[in-house]
Amino acid sequence: MPNQNTALDHVFHALADPTRRAVLHRLVRGPTSVSDLAKPFKMALPSFLQHLQVLEDSGLIRTKKTGRVRTCRFEPKKLATAEQWIAHRRALWQGHLDRLGSYLDELQAQEKSDGESGG
Amino acid sequence: MPNQNTALDHVFHALADPTRRAVLHRLVRGPTSVSDLAKPFKMALPSFLQHLQVLEDSGLIRTKKTGRVRTCRFEPKKLATAEQWIAHRRALWQGHLDRLGSYLDELQAQEKSDGESGG
Repeated sequence: MPNQNTALDHVFHALADPTRRAVLHRLVRGPTSVSDLAKPFKMALPSFLQHLQVLEDSGLIRTKKTGRVRTCRFEPKKLATAEQWIAHRRALWQGHLDRLGSYLDELQAQEKSDGESGG
Repeated sequence: MPNQNTALDHVFHALADPTRRAVLHRLVRGPTSVSDLAKPFKMALPSFLQHLQVLEDSGLIRTKKTGRVRTCRFEPKKLATAEQWIAHRRALWQGHLDRLGSYLDELQAQEKSDGESGG
């Protein structure tokens, strides 16, 4: 799945930065103008805009210019893709633990039955 | 939360690469030796070991040497932290959609009542 892989590369890369995560945290509560978004961050606007670009390239946000105001909004689809990737691996891990537990139960039952027949 | 932030930086960075995700996908099904892990990847061993180092630095895996064999195993805690971060933002987004829906319902009810009193 090269396309899926590339999408996940971009999404996880976008999430790997505290500024970009803070922007997402703001945008999941509703669309915001770039200038309002930038206010809480002590960084030069060009640096901030680069972070927005990474988020937009990953598909996690969209921006739209209306007159002189550029507004950013959250796009849920790509974040869901990342969440599903993680959830699937957690399910596989749970399956591994379950199999390990069953195997251990079998071993213990076997030992008990061996002990009973032996004593 | 600077520590939490740094941990998430490392975890999401580790997930932002198809080789590292493939390694995790293998390890959630059980511990594996480094040599078995490396086999499916068409890359030089030093490059592969760098990927393992990134995964280990992020806390997503642990490695242990027994005799001449180094074994890798998945560590679920940090992946859970990443999943929780995403799930929390999804919940906030759902809250935003719910509020938007309620507001729209109110507007429509208001318009209907205005229409009825007007006609």
